[in-house]
Amino acid sequence: MSDRGQRDPLEEVELTSEMVFDGCLLKVRRDTVGLPDGKEGVREYVRHPGAVAIVAVLPDGGLIFERQYRYPLRRAFVEVPAGKIDPGEDILACAIRELREEAGYEAADWRHLGVMHPCIGYADERIELFLARELRHVGNALDEGEFLELLTLSPDEAEAAVHDGRITDGKTIAALFRALPLLRG
Amino acid sequence: MSDRGQRDPLEEVELTSEMVFDGCLLKVRRDTVGLPDGKEGVREYVRHPGAVAIVAVLPDGGLIFERQYRYPLRRAFVEVPAGKIDPGEDILACAIRELREEAGYEAADWRHLGVMHPCIGYADERIELFLARELRHVGNALDEGEFLELLTLSPDEAEAAVHDGRITDGKTIAALFRALPLLRG
Repeated sequence: MSDRGQRDPLEEVELTSEMVFDGCLLKVRRDTVGLPDGKEGVREYVRHPGAVAIVAVLPDGGLIFERQYRYPLRRAFVEVPAGKIDPGEDILACAIRELREEAGYEAADWRHLGVMHPCIGYADERIELFLARELRHVGNALDEGEFLELLTLSPDEAEAAVHDGRITDGKTIAALFRALPLLRG
Repeated sequence: MSDRGQRDPLEEVELTSEMVFDGCLLKVRRDTVGLPDGKEGVREYVRHPGAVAIVAVLPDGGLIFERQYRYPLRRAFVEVPAGKIDPGEDILACAIRELREEAGYEAADWRHLGVMHPCIGYADERIELFLARELRHVGNALDEGEFLELLTLSPDEAEAAVHDGRITDGKTIAALFRALPLLRG
């Protein structure tokens, strides 16, 4: 994890790049790359605009979660509020927008917790993690075709829900990892 | 997070399903679905065979990590040993294989920590998390075209690396979330 200077010995160098699937939602590229041993390889990956995820703390200390149906896995998941970054959108502006649209809250105190990468093997997505405090309820406004249920868990309940498998969503676990010590500190 | 009986009110019902991209590595499906309000929607998602990720504890208490170049993000990441499940492969057999191939260790003590879902918005991937202890070095055997560097972090160093952003990989954070209390308990 040290500084390795200009060139990473593990680096893979782009030789060719093409869009091989341009869907309604997903964009896939296929690149040929030069590998560290001089051979060539193929890399296919999803291009993603990035997203935000928010640990939002109610005045009583409860954390806001959503239950959302996730079709790829054919079931609902318990997750923190989150959403995709619009083109050119500032990450904090995106977090403010998503917390209001999905959960119906504004927050007076925002803190950037860092970034996580959900799927480094086949997507370039990054998720910017935020902690939102001093919440005020303003009413939500879901996007067309968006359905979710809101629920609240205490920090202890949320931690237990990760350990007993009720929370398995990667971004939610990463957001809790970063936020829990701050909520207790 | 309660039992909601037979039918989830958030459920999206498959109407049609087709393979829209069948790549060398990625398979993408596009389904039309019936939404909870009776309208129709489109869902595109990556089909994935599933994977394992392993928190492996050396006799001195150090945890094994790998530095691997992840082309979609054009840089190397610090991760726990992990790999895709082969068709029909048992998840523990896969974990045993990946720890030996990538890190060069066998473990006498295996514990399944649970499952995490890296990318619930557009992939059906699940990652089965394991804790491996009582390690014995046997020498690694990387797959053709696989390049990585091994490193060791103590549990405290690994936790600090998540908090300071040196570790941002979702599966690694989830594996540490589940394993750290057991390593300290």
